[in-house]
Amino acid sequence: MSLALEDVCGRMAMKAFVMKEIGETDVIEKERPEPGPMDAILKPTVGLVCTSDTHTVHGAIGEREDLTLGHEIVGVVDEVGEDVEDFGPGDRVAVGAITPDWNSEAAQDGHPSQSNGALGGWKFANVKDGTFAEYAHINDADGNLAHIPDGVTDHEAVYTADMLSTGFAGAENADIPMGGTVAVFAQGPVGMMATKGAELQGAGRIIAVETVKNRKELAREYGATDIVDFEDGDPVEQIMDLTDGEGVDAAIEALGADQTLQDCIKVTKPGGTVSNVGYHGDGEFRRIPREEWGVGMAEIDIVTDLCPGGRLRIRRLLRLLEQGKVDPTKMTTHEFDFEDIQDAFEMMEAKEDDIIKPLIRFD
Amino acid sequence: MSLALEDVCGRMAMKAFVMKEIGETDVIEKERPEPGPMDAILKPTVGLVCTSDTHTVHGAIGEREDLTLGHEIVGVVDEVGEDVEDFGPGDRVAVGAITPDWNSEAAQDGHPSQSNGALGGWKFANVKDGTFAEYAHINDADGNLAHIPDGVTDHEAVYTADMLSTGFAGAENADIPMGGTVAVFAQGPVGMMATKGAELQGAGRIIAVETVKNRKELAREYGATDIVDFEDGDPVEQIMDLTDGEGVDAAIEALGADQTLQDCIKVTKPGGTVSNVGYHGDGEFRRIPREEWGVGMAEIDIVTDLCPGGRLRIRRLLRLLEQGKVDPTKMTTHEFDFEDIQDAFEMMEAKEDDIIKPLIRFD
Amino acid sequence: MSLALEDVCGRMAMKAFVMKEIGETDVIEKERPEPGPMDAILKPTVGLVCTSDTHTVHGAIGEREDLTLGHEIVGVVDEVGEDVEDFGPGDRVAVGAITPDWNSEAAQDGHPSQSNGALGGWKFANVKDGTFAEYAHINDADGNLAHIPDGVTDHEAVYTADMLSTGFAGAENADIPMGGTVAVFAQGPVGMMATKGAELQGAGRIIAVETVKNRKELAREYGATDIVDFEDGDPVEQIMDLTDGEGVDAAIEALGADQTLQDCIKVTKPGGTVSNVGYHGDGEFRRIPREEWGVGMAEIDIVTDLCPGGRLRIRRLLRLLEQGKVDPTKMTTHEFDFEDIQDAFEMMEAKEDDIIKPLIRFD
Amino acid sequence: MSLALEDVCGRMAMKAFVMKEIGETDVIEKERPEPGPMDAILKPTVGLVCTSDTHTVHGAIGEREDLTLGHEIVGVVDEVGEDVEDFGPGDRVAVGAITPDWNSEAAQDGHPSQSNGALGGWKFANVKDGTFAEYAHINDADGNLAHIPDGVTDHEAVYTADMLSTGFAGAENADIPMGGTVAVFAQGPVGMMATKGAELQGAGRIIAVETVKNRKELAREYGATDIVDFEDGDPVEQIMDLTDGEGVDAAIEALGADQTLQDCIKVTKPGGTVSNVGYHGDGEFRRIPREEWGVGMAEIDIVTDLCPGGRLRIRRLLRLLEQGKVDPTKMTTHEFDFEDIQDAFEMMEAKEDDIIKPLIRFD
Repeated sequence: MSLALEDVCGRMAMKAFVMKEIGETDVIEKERPEPGPMDAILKPTVGLVCTSDTHTVHGAIGEREDLTLGHEIVGVVDEVGEDVEDFGPGDRVAVGAITPDWNSEAAQDGHPSQSNGALGGWKFANVKDGTFAEYAHINDADGNLAHIPDGVTDHEAVYTADMLSTGFAGAENADIPMGGTVAVFAQGPVGMMATKGAELQGAGRIIAVETVKNRKELAREYGATDIVDFEDGDPVEQIMDLTDGEGVDAAIEALGADQTLQDCIKVTKPGGTVSNVGYHGDGEFRRIPREEWGVGMAEIDIVTDLCPGGRLRIRRLLRLLEQGKVDPTKMTTHEFDFEDIQDAFEMMEAKEDDIIKPLIRFD
Repeated sequence: MSLALEDVCGRMAMKAFVMKEIGETDVIEKERPEPGPMDAILKPTVGLVCTSDTHTVHGAIGEREDLTLGHEIVGVVDEVGEDVEDFGPGDRVAVGAITPDWNSEAAQDGHPSQSNGALGGWKFANVKDGTFAEYAHINDADGNLAHIPDGVTDHEAVYTADMLSTGFAGAENADIPMGGTVAVFAQGPVGMMATKGAELQGAGRIIAVETVKNRKELAREYGATDIVDFEDGDPVEQIMDLTDGEGVDAAIEALGADQTLQDCIKVTKPGGTVSNVGYHGDGEFRRIPREEWGVGMAEIDIVTDLCPGGRLRIRRLLRLLEQGKVDPTKMTTHEFDFEDIQDAFEMMEAKEDDIIKPLIRFD
Repeated sequence: MSLALEDVCGRMAMKAFVMKEIGETDVIEKERPEPGPMDAILKPTVGLVCTSDTHTVHGAIGEREDLTLGHEIVGVVDEVGEDVEDFGPGDRVAVGAITPDWNSEAAQDGHPSQSNGALGGWKFANVKDGTFAEYAHINDADGNLAHIPDGVTDHEAVYTADMLSTGFAGAENADIPMGGTVAVFAQGPVGMMATKGAELQGAGRIIAVETVKNRKELAREYGATDIVDFEDGDPVEQIMDLTDGEGVDAAIEALGADQTLQDCIKVTKPGGTVSNVGYHGDGEFRRIPREEWGVGMAEIDIVTDLCPGGRLRIRRLLRLLEQGKVDPTKMTTHEFDFEDIQDAFEMMEAKEDDIIKPLIRFD
Repeated sequence: MSLALEDVCGRMAMKAFVMKEIGETDVIEKERPEPGPMDAILKPTVGLVCTSDTHTVHGAIGEREDLTLGHEIVGVVDEVGEDVEDFGPGDRVAVGAITPDWNSEAAQDGHPSQSNGALGGWKFANVKDGTFAEYAHINDADGNLAHIPDGVTDHEAVYTADMLSTGFAGAENADIPMGGTVAVFAQGPVGMMATKGAELQGAGRIIAVETVKNRKELAREYGATDIVDFEDGDPVEQIMDLTDGEGVDAAIEALGADQTLQDCIKVTKPGGTVSNVGYHGDGEFRRIPREEWGVGMAEIDIVTDLCPGGRLRIRRLLRLLEQGKVDPTKMTTHEFDFEDIQDAFEMMEAKEDDIIKPLIRFD
């Protein structure tokens, strides 16, 4: 498939899936991006649709015009800027959803995802065009790309961009002791990877909260030792029962709701950690239940994260795939050609047909 | 002064300042406590009244009957249990407000203040009699007492029990980078010691939020480089202005109110830390402002603490006093004899006469 | 089997396997120990012989007379002191090889294994009688015992005492990033559990250094992704080749030799961690290779640990067994009755017959 | 003063103090450097000579030809590359001795000083020309420069480049508890700043080891509470006496010698930290005393650091100067014009006339 055409000015045109304005998406023609000296242009091979893309279309980050959507892809390098050292045309690469400015003060401070402002490392489909196009622009190729090892498929690798990186970060930040207990609220793809991440961090017991059947099943495959179905009753009570009233060492919020954040605090034992990876998309406040928070003195920390990106992070996640430590492709419930991306998008939005993650094939 | 009298059964009676029931305090006669094998009986020399004592009387921790109040004292060991190794009668000692069970799982987990339940290390005037009496019972003397060095006065040492330990913990937990910026909300005695603690942690700029004149002055003496008076306008705006819109590396909540916790989150830069040492005494919730919290992804951690206790902690705090690194006695605005403790208590409750801390002399 | 006999004074006698003096062991009769108020007397069911026991007999910790050997057992509580709250006769329990004084300053400082002096938490077969006897004395039962869950066998549980706790600590202290690379030097039982621990910490690649055939095989079962046999050439070169010259994120020393410690430093990349769990039993020095250490500026940390003990630690390790996260019984190559413990001991010392761990059955 | 001359090709020539070959230095004419797109050219105003420069001349990093020496300067921006955003000609700026590649994997891993290889962030007078010239090239200006606040003099600011950053890092890495005890071995300028850094980290007692009179005096001014003169006897014994046999929570090595590293390990209590900032310039090994290291199990960590650089670091250090938290100019014992830099260099090498730091004035 070669949809790209040279335009009358000699510049390349390409097809891109965009948010035309709040509430409206379409595939349109745009100019192929040009790389700066440290950048690369990538030709995507496969991508994944993320629920956050649907939030964006509905105005979560404000008005945008003809903004290319998407932040989860892998592909082949098409062109690099003159100062790029370690990548060249033809290289098969993965790229994080977050592509930080590595020399920013926030990155120097250990928070690259916050480079140049809150969530500032989040560029794709936010402050620049995203990745659902025939060509995608990658800032700082040496800092943000990673070669995909031979033994890892594109389908596996594309999960490193966001799902593995965000979900695992939820577990890494939770400060889980070896053999400790964890509760993970919601088993969407990020929640499932938080569950898997908790297993990879040495948790002794992982309680997954979910109600959808195929998600509950998959959560077990990813390491959940117990499933709490919130349709069976208050998940807080269920978790306190399962832990003999102790509560858990760590709770991971992977939904982005006021109730689940509250529940996380309620099930976490004094001295434990609440780790948030949920995107809290609405409302003025999130609420901390005062008493269960120990009137501010129970030493329950609340920590948050935006998907870690960067070459080193992606390389390490690819290594886990290479060694077979996790198979994220089980979460791919549906596949679409790029021409049909609108269908994938609508399905993701409606959460129809037990969809978990839809894969987009670019060729 | 020797108020203690042998009662008819040969048991010692003593005077104690108690909460008779919610809302009522009095000095009554009680039996002198007996030590278990690892415990000690202390004869207080000086004490400090804490605002939290007034909360207790008003029912913050529920009904109590004839519970001796107080948790900030130093004194002289009067008697020790048979298994106490390092302390004996006549030793001049300090003791933390929090006296953990050191073999509890929470203590083994690095959270001794939470031993055997949330805030479980808080025993004085909570689950057992407090320290405002002629004799006070200390659990685990070897674990919870510390000898006062010769160069440190009782008046100085008594501040280690709670004010230094809690205030400094607010700064220690705030993860302040060398040369970083800190905002401390409220300059009560804990807030002032958080200010001093931030200085002792190498902060480059310390913005203290306060409005009472003598507290603002004292805050500067304890290391505040800037004072923000919230009567001059929104402290969040003032702090953002002072930091050229950047916000601070760390904010410390030392009041225990919903608004100040929110403000802490609002002034903290992405990747920074909100450290709570305020006692949040009322309301069902504390609220996190969703947007300033970066929709749960700005990597702003919210951490909490209950006053660290224990022999090692107190010894280290005493060392700072010995070396003249801090003079907490500046906070002592009033002094009372034990006979007049009710007056001190009422004054503390009403915050009359610019009171900061009232000292109680036991002899 | 009931070897215990009441002696003429009404005191119980028992059989114990002791070090009579340096170089000489025997099974002798000793008095059954008595519990202090916080202590317990345990009746062992199974135990494991540790190489460090053989070091002790050869004088590693100096002269001892009729000291009962052994520090790895599980058993049934026979008697408890009057202040023990959570354990009673008949309880099936595990106990760490290290039984700290939890109220010591070192424990308060987060280093319980160093309570009251370097390695001070190591009491069994060091400063008091060990566990290879019909009855063993456990200091601070509430702090140092843990109930064995129903689904865990004694044979599994006994590995928590030292092998799991020490080996896993080697991995926990190595600060392994998710998906990072690790080298583990030597695959004795501690090294194997360090390998498993690295897997449980999310390592992406685990290079095990070993030459003995059954150990190499078992290392793979415990998670090694690569085996480096030092009889095939310099392990440093092999590891640098395997990592394309990068070196590893972390190296774990599990032998206790000068050469392997040096090798650990040589294969660790700048910014990485060398985690020592080897017992360095001889020589005046361990040597750091100056250049590979980056002339003291390559940010390679060298960290060490003595087997973490305590109720919480053991409970968490038992949880991992309960959930089937690790099967340590594969390391049990030989089994002996208590009567034949001398044979087990000699075999362990000689490392005959590809022995890894010999199990001792007490009844 | 304007020594710079346009050469016949229209390119600027400038004077530079170089190492012509091992053992030989001179002021020669070189071409003025050109900035890449992200770089800046700085016109130094003042600089400091570092002992490590003298090591370099003697071959510590191998052969070099006409390499400009020096890594401690401040100055005025003369020219910037086209992609530099936050700095422009005329800006008064400081720059770290270490100027990392911020998008390197090591920097992403939290170790920017190790970017692209061990000590790879060290570029000045190592892999590129240093700063003792009329113009100096700064890689990644936005990442590595910092504006000097109005209230800070050039003389003060130049100490941020290495002395404050390295010395303070020695203290920051030492994990000093509030009120803890620290020993700092050697009071050269880095050692003095480690002493000051320990004070800024809240140490309760700081024992400085030194024998030179003016250094001992200055150490006290920078926060040493005790001075141990090694000419008065074994410093290990003296420190153990001062701490009643306990040893210190942390020891900082600021000399770079085998003996002092050993002494650091010997005086550090179990569970404590040895923090190295000394440059270990000779010998094949550094030696760890096995017994005092607790046979590899006393939980004494040995950590190292190469001077942290970067805009954020330098800004924070400048903030401490702005607030008057430290006055490093007391260490400036001598001043020289750039023309006389050879004299300064020779004096530094010989450590004549109680020299601590010689300042170089460029105009």
